[in-house]
Amino acid sequence: MDLNPYWISGFVDGEGTFYVGIYKNPTMRIGFQVLPEFVIVQHRKDVELLYEIKNYFNCGVVRVNHGDRMEFRVRAVPDLNNVIIPFFKKYPLHSKKREDFEIFSEIVSLTVRKEHLTENGIRKILNLSKEMNRKDKVRTARLLKELVG
Amino acid sequence: MDLNPYWISGFVDGEGTFYVGIYKNPTMRIGFQVLPEFVIVQHRKDVELLYEIKNYFNCGVVRVNHGDRMEFRVRAVPDLNNVIIPFFKKYPLHSKKREDFEIFSEIVSLTVRKEHLTENGIRKILNLSKEMNRKDKVRTARLLKELVG
Repeated sequence: MDLNPYWISGFVDGEGTFYVGIYKNPTMRIGFQVLPEFVIVQHRKDVELLYEIKNYFNCGVVRVNHGDRMEFRVRAVPDLNNVIIPFFKKYPLHSKKREDFEIFSEIVSLTVRKEHLTENGIRKILNLSKEMNRKDKVRTARLLKELVG
Repeated sequence: MDLNPYWISGFVDGEGTFYVGIYKNPTMRIGFQVLPEFVIVQHRKDVELLYEIKNYFNCGVVRVNHGDRMEFRVRAVPDLNNVIIPFFKKYPLHSKKREDFEIFSEIVSLTVRKEHLTENGIRKILNLSKEMNRKDKVRTARLLKELVG
């Protein structure tokens, strides 16, 4: 049975994550690496559903997340920018996760415009990322302090 | 923004639970009480969304689940039978939760036909309920043993 796009939006509102990893990386000119990703984690009993979602979007990968959990993950910036973000603009989220999605979308736009390669861009991204419902708020604040300091 | 029914189906595929509580109740003729319920639990920051879902279905209640978690819950058998179950037949689930829904739906049909008031009906319900993806498999097996024993 084909997935309805609104069903996907509802499922992602419950199960999806829009995450921006920001890592110190001394091999990069600006010293920071920005890794936005869209992820859906499921128990392996529902791995077929992850493949159906992958087929729907025609991008991303299905891989082991941890233990008996599998994930569908999209990391390629062009796929996020041209497929994933337009999809959730057309079929909007309704939970507070929508706020995360909007910040995520802004950060992806900044990386598309290569602003993440400038110190000012990284500062913007760290400031935006602080507002996300993320587990590593403390770490983000520390990175921002290091950049400013 | 109005909720699309497919969005609701997707959201419930991630966040909803179809549960059948079976309790010993010596005040009832057959000694068992069957309590099917449909529940969606969310952090209280998304309580508005639970009210939107309640409005959509026009039944059930929104109440505290535990701590900072709220729930939308439908327990009335006529509402389960006439509103909730037909909805998920029209807008189907795609995850393995669908199997739980199908068993739930069979059990609700049995209670509509008052079969839960007979020993044979309770045995059927306990046997069906064993197949659900429930946390209290051991307890169900014990109840079934008590009934048979």
